[in-house]
Amino acid sequence: MIRPPEAVRWSADGSAVDIIDQTLLPATEQRILLRSAAEAETAIREMRVRGAPAIGIVAAFALAVEAVRLAGHEREGFATRWAAAAERLRAARPTAINLAWAVDRMREAARPLEDGPALVAERLRATADAILAEDRAMCQRIGEHALALVPEPQARVLTHCNAGALATGGIGTALAPLYLAAGAGRSLQVFASETRPLLQGSRLTAWELSRAGIAVTIVTDSVGAVLMREGSVDFVIVGADRIVANGDTANKVGTYGLAVLARHHGIPFYVAAPSSTVDAGTADGSAIPIEHRDADEVRRGFGLLTAPADAPVFAPAFDITPASLIDAIITERGIFRPPFTGLVTGTTRGGA
Amino acid sequence: MIRPPEAVRWSADGSAVDIIDQTLLPATEQRILLRSAAEAETAIREMRVRGAPAIGIVAAFALAVEAVRLAGHEREGFATRWAAAAERLRAARPTAINLAWAVDRMREAARPLEDGPALVAERLRATADAILAEDRAMCQRIGEHALALVPEPQARVLTHCNAGALATGGIGTALAPLYLAAGAGRSLQVFASETRPLLQGSRLTAWELSRAGIAVTIVTDSVGAVLMREGSVDFVIVGADRIVANGDTANKVGTYGLAVLARHHGIPFYVAAPSSTVDAGTADGSAIPIEHRDADEVRRGFGLLTAPADAPVFAPAFDITPASLIDAIITERGIFRPPFTGLVTGTTRGGA
Repeated sequence: MIRPPEAVRWSADGSAVDIIDQTLLPATEQRILLRSAAEAETAIREMRVRGAPAIGIVAAFALAVEAVRLAGHEREGFATRWAAAAERLRAARPTAINLAWAVDRMREAARPLEDGPALVAERLRATADAILAEDRAMCQRIGEHALALVPEPQARVLTHCNAGALATGGIGTALAPLYLAAGAGRSLQVFASETRPLLQGSRLTAWELSRAGIAVTIVTDSVGAVLMREGSVDFVIVGADRIVANGDTANKVGTYGLAVLARHHGIPFYVAAPSSTVDAGTADGSAIPIEHRDADEVRRGFGLLTAPADAPVFAPAFDITPASLIDAIITERGIFRPPFTGLVTGTTRGGA
Repeated sequence: MIRPPEAVRWSADGSAVDIIDQTLLPATEQRILLRSAAEAETAIREMRVRGAPAIGIVAAFALAVEAVRLAGHEREGFATRWAAAAERLRAARPTAINLAWAVDRMREAARPLEDGPALVAERLRATADAILAEDRAMCQRIGEHALALVPEPQARVLTHCNAGALATGGIGTALAPLYLAAGAGRSLQVFASETRPLLQGSRLTAWELSRAGIAVTIVTDSVGAVLMREGSVDFVIVGADRIVANGDTANKVGTYGLAVLARHHGIPFYVAAPSSTVDAGTADGSAIPIEHRDADEVRRGFGLLTAPADAPVFAPAFDITPASLIDAIITERGIFRPPFTGLVTGTTRGGA
């Protein structure tokens, strides 16, 4: 029985947002309840929940909870307070595009706020449920499409960072086909590269896969090359933070190197992401801005000083994998192949 | 003024081995004195000194110190005790080939032990001095040969792990041409990849280069690919643990991936090592045994649990870079180019 963790769900009595506290993983699996928009804002800022889709769902749930919490106010007080909470929540992680999107959708559903607490709360709850359900369905469809790319009866897979259940409302994006393959009784060996500096691969991907009973082996980031050379990897699959019109893909740093290595070894390299990740307005990867991480995440990432205290560090958070190194991009709409023209038009004409 | 650190030297009064305690780097630069073979054995086992040439020098120095320490014994008691100390020291790091080599050379110099403490101690001191002087000269010559490969007037270099002054008695192997270039007033930008799991790049290479006033920037292991793609690297240079007859090279894990990436980006990839690293009796890299590191160096390398406690880890200590990806191998004898036939014959006919 394959059971991915639920990153976000309603509490048992339906009155609070129930999340896994990801800052405690992998040492401790502890769920916490968020009882207001302010508590959700703090949880997002402290990265107790991460992964763009998961953050969006938490925000939506929290705004539904907030409406109930404010139900004692008269109409105008309710409207003012709820709108302010939404505004603050939207700013909790400025770069998480799904957060802004989810808050905006909840604002739309709330309108007109003057309908009063009871009616507005009901609409918000329904919209939050819809956002989660849509995300789950999106993950499921990505998994079903990508499953066609997983060799049978046995597959050995390398993935990077965490594009799994912990990052979404469902079974993840890059990990979705792996959950489905394992659920269908197929044999899998997953290699999770640890993903310096923040180790999402060893902290999160290894945790959620092993918890679900899927064989996962951790490697440091430079060992992917060794695995490929010794013939231990059938394909590489990763998520994406942004895919632009020509198929160039921004993802967690380390992705680009794996794509070059996969091509050198003749191993297919796949990207799995919701179609909402596709930024059709940007022509190619050169226009994607790249955030940089704090130098101390590299110099003293785990509490210990492991570099000269003032040594310069070059720490891009993401890198750009050119479309030419990507064998397929899988969204909930299907499998897109080079030259990826269907990504923007929405058709899989170049598809599987 | 470029001053690489001295990993090993005589104490001021000449009675003890004076080393930098590398386990305290980069936080603290502290030298410790080893006053017996037993203290040296412990320092080697605890990795207070590491790097194959540096370990060999410490062993040689310690055996000279040990002879003085045992000088009060009559001839037979001296001989027995010194021989036992040499045997124990030789076993401190079974895979460090220079350790066995240095101890054997000291044993040879000690013969006949029956000459008595005074005479034997004198011969041992002279041999230990010779071993250090030869290592220093070897580093210097590697640096002088490799300097021809460093672009002028400015060079941007990526290196991996630590093949520097801390690993040798002199200015290192891969870092030797960088010390010479900087000493000649040339402009350098070195990128040190951190080298998971034990972080010799960020802990040691970044420390010794920045201490010597050479500009060094730390990157996580997967960022080398980004630097190459953005055109920030003129060449890659690394050390070697073993080079076999056809030029295939075993070095710290991560080296192979960097070699593939360098080739993909059209960037020269160089290996610098003493000719004693060349194992002419092994035909190609497939016959090189690869040690594996302890899983907990990956799962809780920084004291903190950063992976599921029982997650399997695949952690080869070294990888094999095929000769086909190496543009030049530099030893103290010169620059060797593909097909590297001169490595075994000792001529640089294929050379620069």
